[in-house]
Amino acid sequence: MALNNTKVILKETPVGMPTADQFEAVPADLPAIGEGEVLVKNLWLSLDPYMRSQISARHISGAVLPGDTMKGETIAEVVESNSADFKAGDKVRCFGGWQAYAALPAAALTKVPDNVEHSPYLLSILGMPGLTAYAGLIWQAQPKAGDTVVVAAATGAVGSMVVQLAKQHGCRVVAIAGGQHKCDFAVNELGADVCIDRHKEDLATALDTHCPDGINIYFDLIGGDILELCSQRLAVGARMILCGLAADYNRTTSTPPPGPSPVYIIKSRATVFGLVVYDFEPRRAEFIEACASLVGEGKIKIREQVVEGLANAGQGFVDLLSGDNFGKVLVKIA
Amino acid sequence: MALNNTKVILKETPVGMPTADQFEAVPADLPAIGEGEVLVKNLWLSLDPYMRSQISARHISGAVLPGDTMKGETIAEVVESNSADFKAGDKVRCFGGWQAYAALPAAALTKVPDNVEHSPYLLSILGMPGLTAYAGLIWQAQPKAGDTVVVAAATGAVGSMVVQLAKQHGCRVVAIAGGQHKCDFAVNELGADVCIDRHKEDLATALDTHCPDGINIYFDLIGGDILELCSQRLAVGARMILCGLAADYNRTTSTPPPGPSPVYIIKSRATVFGLVVYDFEPRRAEFIEACASLVGEGKIKIREQVVEGLANAGQGFVDLLSGDNFGKVLVKIA
Repeated sequence: MALNNTKVILKETPVGMPTADQFEAVPADLPAIGEGEVLVKNLWLSLDPYMRSQISARHISGAVLPGDTMKGETIAEVVESNSADFKAGDKVRCFGGWQAYAALPAAALTKVPDNVEHSPYLLSILGMPGLTAYAGLIWQAQPKAGDTVVVAAATGAVGSMVVQLAKQHGCRVVAIAGGQHKCDFAVNELGADVCIDRHKEDLATALDTHCPDGINIYFDLIGGDILELCSQRLAVGARMILCGLAADYNRTTSTPPPGPSPVYIIKSRATVFGLVVYDFEPRRAEFIEACASLVGEGKIKIREQVVEGLANAGQGFVDLLSGDNFGKVLVKIA
Repeated sequence: MALNNTKVILKETPVGMPTADQFEAVPADLPAIGEGEVLVKNLWLSLDPYMRSQISARHISGAVLPGDTMKGETIAEVVESNSADFKAGDKVRCFGGWQAYAALPAAALTKVPDNVEHSPYLLSILGMPGLTAYAGLIWQAQPKAGDTVVVAAATGAVGSMVVQLAKQHGCRVVAIAGGQHKCDFAVNELGADVCIDRHKEDLATALDTHCPDGINIYFDLIGGDILELCSQRLAVGARMILCGLAADYNRTTSTPPPGPSPVYIIKSRATVFGLVVYDFEPRRAEFIEACASLVGEGKIKIREQVVEGLANAGQGFVDLLSGDNFGKVLVKIA
């Protein structure tokens, strides 16, 4: 069996919005595995907004510099193992990166549980985006029935989960998404009570209309104007999760953008939580326990958008950042 | 006994920093009391930064417009009572305003407890500023021994209390104050580990020096640059109390100033609490229970700066806003 690797490298650090030609799929040697290591074949690669921060060396998880292989979480199959814990054919979740094969220490792999029928769910509603939503909404914000919950990027991987979890907890959900087809999906499939089309509606007016008693929970994945407008409308006792900075990903200045005025936080007596999902890794099993049956029963779902092959991963990532993708973006590698 | 009232009215709404001539002490008729009301003679008036927001009609407690009597909390003595709950001679705490006498419903009065020897403490370390500090630091931020706590305006009524409560809980306290005499007081009398003189030192550099492992708790009474600089230096798991906006009190625009970037909140996984002290009124007894003996034993203290007479209250308030006062500012009315 003559295996060869393909990997996608960052060609140059983007300034502003990345372009597909800044990523290149190149042939590479198959990595050798050392003692305790495992060779995996990546099947599915998760594309996520945080990668924009990695390639500007601004992410908490570390930098991807020109010439580096792009990082990312994958569902993979074990090809060769120098560890007693894994054998060829095992399905695993790992940070296999944007490449066909990866050599990883056994400790960095997690087996795909037998009861997960559709393994890519471990990259979305039963994975990091799902855990992000669960940690922020359930553990931090602690939703109560009747709360008005606002979430932008509502059909994305995290947003989809926030909408559905909030509905499971009896909240009223005001979704925000870009385009009629996404709004229809947010309402008809995810169960949002209403969805504001940010391409068409004036957000301030729409928020006033749909949140007449203010916002009890705002789950922020965006920053910028949306964060500002929601902060102005917080109800007394509101909770706000700060978790992503899509509006900030492509900035070209070294100074991060300002946030909402303290006036809004004080007036609403809000509690604002900074969220980094890695902190909740020790509670992942608890999250899966709570959600796996809901996923199994179809009560929590996700739209998946599949990009075919590593050669198209760069374009898929650019589309993700520009909002041209719809749902959880996955690259089908093999 | 021919009593006449004197009251201080707001002559005009200040634009920017108020001036003493915008407040005028004028003679007035003694107010008549109706059924269930009490006539009180104000002894001590509390001057507080929040009054700046009231006179711009920006405060949660309501507006003071030109021609209105200035509002404020007082220690007073009952002169005449139409309530079975109070009799002449009783010492009470109430919102008697900037005036010699006030007619108030009995329900708006609270008796000065017998065990409080120095009744003005009920306007500072055993009163609203103390409760503010206690609610934010103890109930919201939940300090742990060894935490680095930063507090600006550290010799003011709230700040003094934050410094001392934090030390009681085994924290390291980095105070910020304006001027050597205030810094000396913060360290020598209040027990701060260090005090940064904001008139003399570069705040960013000083914070770097004195908070090498970041800030675990920042109690903000100021907003503006100090909030920004502290936000940049939050340690992982930090708590930040937003409670006052001194830097914003004199603004002349209708738009409130921006706050710190969400980047800092996310990176530190901070929890940010908006604090309005009125919310904690139901827990005032619990706070007094926790602090009264510490005050009695001299373990919590406050410097008081006394302004003599209502005629000087306006100037005293201007000095408070400009930082020219030192400690808890009280007007001695009678």
